[in-house]
Amino acid sequence: MKRKLAAEIRTICWERGKVVFIDQRLLPDEERHVAVRDYREVVGAIRELAVRGAPAIGVAAALGIALGMKASRATDLAALDGEFAAICGAFAAARPTARNLFWAVERMQRRYRAAAPPEKEAGARRPAVAALKKREGFPAVRRRLQEALVAEAQAIWAEDMEINRSIGAHGADLLAAGDNVLTHCNAGALATAGYGTALGVIRAAWEQGKDIHVYVDETRPVLQGARLTAWELKREGVPATLITDSMAGFLMQRGKIQKIVVGADRIAANGDTANKIGTYSLAVLARAHRIPFYVAAPLSTFDVTLETGREIPIEERAPEEVTTCRGVVLAPRGIDVYNPAFDVTPGRYIAAFVTEKGLLRPPFRSALRPFLRS
Amino acid sequence: MKRKLAAEIRTICWERGKVVFIDQRLLPDEERHVAVRDYREVVGAIRELAVRGAPAIGVAAALGIALGMKASRATDLAALDGEFAAICGAFAAARPTARNLFWAVERMQRRYRAAAPPEKEAGARRPAVAALKKREGFPAVRRRLQEALVAEAQAIWAEDMEINRSIGAHGADLLAAGDNVLTHCNAGALATAGYGTALGVIRAAWEQGKDIHVYVDETRPVLQGARLTAWELKREGVPATLITDSMAGFLMQRGKIQKIVVGADRIAANGDTANKIGTYSLAVLARAHRIPFYVAAPLSTFDVTLETGREIPIEERAPEEVTTCRGVVLAPRGIDVYNPAFDVTPGRYIAAFVTEKGLLRPPFRSALRPFLRS
Repeated sequence: MKRKLAAEIRTICWERGKVVFIDQRLLPDEERHVAVRDYREVVGAIRELAVRGAPAIGVAAALGIALGMKASRATDLAALDGEFAAICGAFAAARPTARNLFWAVERMQRRYRAAAPPEKEAGARRPAVAALKKREGFPAVRRRLQEALVAEAQAIWAEDMEINRSIGAHGADLLAAGDNVLTHCNAGALATAGYGTALGVIRAAWEQGKDIHVYVDETRPVLQGARLTAWELKREGVPATLITDSMAGFLMQRGKIQKIVVGADRIAANGDTANKIGTYSLAVLARAHRIPFYVAAPLSTFDVTLETGREIPIEERAPEEVTTCRGVVLAPRGIDVYNPAFDVTPGRYIAAFVTEKGLLRPPFRSALRPFLRS
Repeated sequence: MKRKLAAEIRTICWERGKVVFIDQRLLPDEERHVAVRDYREVVGAIRELAVRGAPAIGVAAALGIALGMKASRATDLAALDGEFAAICGAFAAARPTARNLFWAVERMQRRYRAAAPPEKEAGARRPAVAALKKREGFPAVRRRLQEALVAEAQAIWAEDMEINRSIGAHGADLLAAGDNVLTHCNAGALATAGYGTALGVIRAAWEQGKDIHVYVDETRPVLQGARLTAWELKREGVPATLITDSMAGFLMQRGKIQKIVVGADRIAANGDTANKIGTYSLAVLARAHRIPFYVAAPLSTFDVTLETGREIPIEERAPEEVTTCRGVVLAPRGIDVYNPAFDVTPGRYIAAFVTEKGLLRPPFRSALRPFLRS
């Protein structure tokens, strides 16, 4: 029996010239949609985890770049180029690990260059822009560039929605009725424009009428599992049980987990996958218990410029994330802390990637090739 | 160069007719020593984790039984027997997993029976007690019994201190200068009468002048690592770094952990070990990374009436431990929670047990036999 999800979650979008997003730091207590006009607030939202999750970060960066450029009052192309470079730079520096962030920045840069190619690349075309400028005045040129960037960002947003639905459709077949599915962190609607990657797979199976049950790792230190994934599943009526991260192994030992599905922040050419800290431990435990371990991610998460995961930069975040929990101090003052936000799971632990174009099975390097052509 | 530890921690003791303990729920913010006269407060302290850690629970139960019996105004042996049974029952029901709790209750029961044997067991001796009662009045008999129980509890306390020193001495050889040692939960001074089991091993190596460094798992949900182990090590100047539980696997992958030492709550005859939830995951990860995994525990933690760990009851605690953190709500209201406080690590994952009589190497069942004689 097919089911309908109770609620659609609108993580981030473009609304009448503003970027509107849920401030995820306030969840699950409060669902506050914040509308901002200044791109620096979008950069801040990414840095401070108000918007997080690799695909959502990509969408936010695209919308944020469009927002920043929309405010431009540049009177010549050199000035506009400078503003664009600065805005793109601010987004690219917001967080280091998620591939989708750089992917989105690069795509916005391509769109900008297509509309206003730099002299060296454009050859004869750049003078055309200059000529245009003379004929109709620079403000009109700027406006067309601004509109192109807004359109591109909205396209990225809309594609992400579609991609997630497609990931869900491909991945749902991996889950069977009666499965207990473990997930880590939040690879849900809140980590994307909507619907989610790992939770997209779970949602799609649930919508197909499969009776599944989800175990949710709380995902310290920032608790994306307890705060966000639990909130999404509860809201939509998907049966879910919250556990601490340390309980997953025990559940596997007792035969209570049949599948594991997580998201990804960056995937190297050989399938090595950076994802929320703790993912690697789950993959090792899954192997020891012969539980299939799946990674659901759009193709924009793959970074084939990296041969292996060793080259993926791992973000280290502030010690306060570990020594406190939602503002409450947990540990003695002055204790040394190590706080890597991600780890890298070797491709050999991964049974399949679920992408918008279908499943990727090992060997990943060769399986990936046709997927990246399009 | 030998070192001296900066501070001695007095977890629990008998002081002028009262049981005095550190309320560990307040750590690391406040070191409050609470003195109680009512044994029910000791039962409550165990149930509510003001006193926790298997050996400390055993010591607390012994001191608590002595405290409860000291308050008795029973006027005949039957009434005294009844009170004793009720008090022992209250302690035995306080928590289900730690072997040391039952061990301590049983030892107090043996001491009581030796002083006032029941008619069936005692044969001719019970009438002797009755005769005594007639000659010098029951209050004097009761007082002698009460004194015997206080003495026995104090002996258990003192032995635990000695046992921990001995565990430390045997275990210190396992650690080498330069080692990064991972520990989980708190098997420290706070989990015992003092000095600790797993942290006893670490302390002893440190006192021997070995430069070691400790990684401390925060140990959700109750955060004994962040609150207690970090506090102990910081106080004593042992170099320590706090991590979340999900980071341990990543550290192992990066070669940053050389040894793992944890405590135990109950150990079956084959070496299967119940310990704080998350221990099993660490053991599987240690095996995958060829890191030796040690369990430090007094022989009173071994329960040879159990063939394997499958028979060990696993305490499930309140969901609020998971949905909150030091009183702050983390998860959406009404989310389902699973909260097992312990897991069972199969003996085959354990390189050695460190006991007060020396190291136990596999096969544990036969290695254990001579240790339990004496």
